[in-house]
Amino acid sequence: MDAQPEKLPRPRVAALDDILGVPFKVLDDGLVRVVDYMGDDAAIVQAARVSYGAGTKAVSDDRGLIRYLLQHRHTTPFEMCEMKLHVRVPMDAWRQWIRHRTASVNECSSRYSVVNDAAQRTAPDAWRGQSSDNKQGSAGFLDAAAGAGFTASEQELQAHARRVYDERLAAGVAREQARKDLPLCTYTEAYWKVDLHNLLHFLALRMDPHAQKEIRDYATVIGREVVARWVPLTWEAFEDFRLGAVSYSRLENAVMAAVGSGDRDKACAVAREAGWLKPASAGGYVRNRERTECEQKLRDLNLSIPW
Amino acid sequence: MDAQPEKLPRPRVAALDDILGVPFKVLDDGLVRVVDYMGDDAAIVQAARVSYGAGTKAVSDDRGLIRYLLQHRHTTPFEMCEMKLHVRVPMDAWRQWIRHRTASVNECSSRYSVVNDAAQRTAPDAWRGQSSDNKQGSAGFLDAAAGAGFTASEQELQAHARRVYDERLAAGVAREQARKDLPLCTYTEAYWKVDLHNLLHFLALRMDPHAQKEIRDYATVIGREVVARWVPLTWEAFEDFRLGAVSYSRLENAVMAAVGSGDRDKACAVAREAGWLKPASAGGYVRNRERTECEQKLRDLNLSIPW
Amino acid sequence: MDAQPEKLPRPRVAALDDILGVPFKVLDDGLVRVVDYMGDDAAIVQAARVSYGAGTKAVSDDRGLIRYLLQHRHTTPFEMCEMKLHVRVPMDAWRQWIRHRTASVNECSSRYSVVNDAAQRTAPDAWRGQSSDNKQGSAGFLDAAAGAGFTASEQELQAHARRVYDERLAAGVAREQARKDLPLCTYTEAYWKVDLHNLLHFLALRMDPHAQKEIRDYATVIGREVVARWVPLTWEAFEDFRLGAVSYSRLENAVMAAVGSGDRDKACAVAREAGWLKPASAGGYVRNRERTECEQKLRDLNLSIPW
Amino acid sequence: MDAQPEKLPRPRVAALDDILGVPFKVLDDGLVRVVDYMGDDAAIVQAARVSYGAGTKAVSDDRGLIRYLLQHRHTTPFEMCEMKLHVRVPMDAWRQWIRHRTASVNECSSRYSVVNDAAQRTAPDAWRGQSSDNKQGSAGFLDAAAGAGFTASEQELQAHARRVYDERLAAGVAREQARKDLPLCTYTEAYWKVDLHNLLHFLALRMDPHAQKEIRDYATVIGREVVARWVPLTWEAFEDFRLGAVSYSRLENAVMAAVGSGDRDKACAVAREAGWLKPASAGGYVRNRERTECEQKLRDLNLSIPW
Repeated sequence: MDAQPEKLPRPRVAALDDILGVPFKVLDDGLVRVVDYMGDDAAIVQAARVSYGAGTKAVSDDRGLIRYLLQHRHTTPFEMCEMKLHVRVPMDAWRQWIRHRTASVNECSSRYSVVNDAAQRTAPDAWRGQSSDNKQGSAGFLDAAAGAGFTASEQELQAHARRVYDERLAAGVAREQARKDLPLCTYTEAYWKVDLHNLLHFLALRMDPHAQKEIRDYATVIGREVVARWVPLTWEAFEDFRLGAVSYSRLENAVMAAVGSGDRDKACAVAREAGWLKPASAGGYVRNRERTECEQKLRDLNLSIPW
Repeated sequence: MDAQPEKLPRPRVAALDDILGVPFKVLDDGLVRVVDYMGDDAAIVQAARVSYGAGTKAVSDDRGLIRYLLQHRHTTPFEMCEMKLHVRVPMDAWRQWIRHRTASVNECSSRYSVVNDAAQRTAPDAWRGQSSDNKQGSAGFLDAAAGAGFTASEQELQAHARRVYDERLAAGVAREQARKDLPLCTYTEAYWKVDLHNLLHFLALRMDPHAQKEIRDYATVIGREVVARWVPLTWEAFEDFRLGAVSYSRLENAVMAAVGSGDRDKACAVAREAGWLKPASAGGYVRNRERTECEQKLRDLNLSIPW
Repeated sequence: MDAQPEKLPRPRVAALDDILGVPFKVLDDGLVRVVDYMGDDAAIVQAARVSYGAGTKAVSDDRGLIRYLLQHRHTTPFEMCEMKLHVRVPMDAWRQWIRHRTASVNECSSRYSVVNDAAQRTAPDAWRGQSSDNKQGSAGFLDAAAGAGFTASEQELQAHARRVYDERLAAGVAREQARKDLPLCTYTEAYWKVDLHNLLHFLALRMDPHAQKEIRDYATVIGREVVARWVPLTWEAFEDFRLGAVSYSRLENAVMAAVGSGDRDKACAVAREAGWLKPASAGGYVRNRERTECEQKLRDLNLSIPW
Repeated sequence: MDAQPEKLPRPRVAALDDILGVPFKVLDDGLVRVVDYMGDDAAIVQAARVSYGAGTKAVSDDRGLIRYLLQHRHTTPFEMCEMKLHVRVPMDAWRQWIRHRTASVNECSSRYSVVNDAAQRTAPDAWRGQSSDNKQGSAGFLDAAAGAGFTASEQELQAHARRVYDERLAAGVAREQARKDLPLCTYTEAYWKVDLHNLLHFLALRMDPHAQKEIRDYATVIGREVVARWVPLTWEAFEDFRLGAVSYSRLENAVMAAVGSGDRDKACAVAREAGWLKPASAGGYVRNRERTECEQKLRDLNLSIPW
């Protein structure tokens, strides 16, 4: 490292200071807002130039360096930035949220305090159908008439649960026990503090279309409203090298290389050796997840399927 | 390290092998059982003798060394042992549980699978009163007549929640959304894997009388039924140096040392300087948490309170 | 989860039990050996079937499920397996090693014990040249004559350092201070315990051709001699979906899809918009790292470079 | 939580802003300086009042609440503050430093860059003797004449190591390999980022008299110059409840309570049952570490030893 200046200014991000404390609304009654932060794009560059001595010509500017780091998974410089959010979120989404262990959490305790917040309510047009091809997903929406019925029964059930809770408290039941039958989707509040590397990992998983809609809504707000303002160069690189990236396995690469050189036989040989081309009794091939995924990737690249 | 033998036997603990897979019942319908483990008391000693070259006379035997390590918070040798449990636990207790971040978890997903388990039920004599001096605790029980009423209303609410859940599923609502109004105390299941150091930390916090009864019941079973069998020397040391230990602050030590030498004036001077002895208008002293705690500790040691 | 059997057998891996405690030699005087382990391929499947209710037809067998998990980065089931190694390794490689924070370590203390081990010695034909295109890498070897000189001067320096160390000890200097001028490559020993998910992450980074040769030698032994025996299905999947995988960025995918459909103009438009095609004054394009990497990937797939 | 203000000011600590970037010198050529930080005493209070609803009268002011949190090991509010330091430190002290895993690190790479920094030099009066009663410690200093000799031989060895390093580089040996025989105490530089809870844990271990002097010097500077300015209420509480605290085991408490009530027989019975009073053949008792420690604690409290 070079000579140290005797005094450093504290890094600030004007675009983030503008929204400090301002709540972004999520779901019917949830929110996300920035409480404090540390670092910016420049802090990532500063750390990287120490670690990786990254002064080569090819990555001479900050944007290029940040893109290089993110692409090649040099993750430690992104840990140099830190974000602290205040969130209000239904407990069932929160349970998924706090499975991310590399973060700090202070949650509102319903042992100490009476639960003031209501449960999350679902609009008549927001009841999702069970996905048939994805056991853990949803697909489409119930029609509005059925939805209206479920919204009404939801309201009735939530009111019932609240009444029981209030009766318990009135009779002196301990708060920590009285809450036990509140709905899973009761709102809670917390401070959540996480470094940028782990925040990006959270966003990659929770902005994914396979994530449950509720937590995806939060992740999308955090990504597009907060991170994009905070570290714009990192956010751009994240969209290019993480959200928009596709990984090809060793076998997929071998198939694609054979297709690329116009050698269909070789492509089929690779697939056959991998067990992808077992003939089905009804013709065609026995269903095979990896082959199906490879076919989709070939299609996305406008390459022909060789078998 | 010394010369390596060419082959090592794998460490086993016969007393633990005897209960591998055997469920210990907790609450009305919960369980804990050992799925697998790694290491034993000897593995701790093995690691410590490498790290701390712990071959001094004073800690020449395994028991003495383990006690020394635990007392002086040499924690890394305890990380050399690992425990994997299968647990069934109400989700509200589980939420407290997984706040312990240094563990590995695979939880049953209610996005994938229909929730089969019922919610935790409370017996008529098990409704706890709100503690008046501890805002987050409970104290005593409601009388049986009142309790019977709450048990009945709990059953009714849980049945209502279940009915709504089943109706949603029957109408094709996605499982991930249908579950949203189930009670917080609905049972879930998980594999939980943790090293012994972090397990002891979990037990120290969750066997504590201030922990909520539900999770305390689990911690107590894990401690007394599992850990005590697995690493008996460590368990004994844990009871002596953690569960049964008391910490005295710098000020408390100064007061006690003054009391010990019979110098009440000095003890009072320490307390006064700490701001513990501000006179109350009604006589006596203004309420002060630290003074009150110090008085209790003096009483526990049968020492007289000097002021 | 289904009904629990009353008693479980403890998982074992015969192929690993066969080498328990057997040292694998690394470098001139280093070693790796398995001390203990927990779990196997079946334990991963067991955990995944709980978490992801993974009973779909497409992943009906264990191999298919493990491949699915690894490909789609469902990482928690791999945390259910644990490995404990005894290693002897030069301290400079060890410093890189322990940067992996999600592991447990008990290292031989040179504060407690005299350093018996020598420093790592380099053979005359093993002196590597500085890479010119990779600032942190090496490339090729010095010729044997020059190498012989460096090996001789290395031996002399190491002997000098050892002599100074011994003189300090003989005069009563504290061990913790006497060691301060030993060479960075002095061997140390440690127990290293890590779960399979984090071990695979370690291997992915340290078996990579960009990793320094010394730690790469250790990683390769751990991968090929230990992990391949321990969890053969996981190892096969790791080779296909991690070691052999390639990630394509959003821009690279767009270029490839355009090339795949034969639309060179579109491919060039994507590249131009990305800033990859700035004309150089001497003809051709200004040097651009991302364009160069994209070109290499196209070549690897036998696709033509569109610009 | 209460209603959210629409805009929040960013927390700042004037006393810390005054020294931002200013290097504190440590050892002969090391340094510590603050690069950035997040949060302050008020941020801890803010988080705690959410988590623990900590509005009881007994802990009504910020100072009282922070003291309560630290005393009772409510650690998560302290995680809400974050510190980023730039340090220059000898590699052997750095190795101890980075054993603290819950921190983020970007270290200067000697694969990328030529090592400019010299090794740490020891003054003639700074050579410490080996402690006889603490196998891992040092005690006193060698006399100046002997010290002068060791300082001279240290200088000679360091110059020799540097010469070999330079020769290797001049001949084109890769930097990553050339460095292998530099002294363990060669200076390195890094950014180190850690939350306040983990920083206090680091300080408790590394400011301890048993920590090696070199790292203790760094910890002391970080504690007294940085943390004391940053979060003065927390620092005061840390000195009272951590640095100045003493823990008494279950057995020690039992002995002390018996002594406190004047019941020497009971105290001896406790000690005898614990195995502390085995008669030695030469009279007195067989050496016993736990008894010795208990005796020292009784002495520190001016209580008489009952046996």
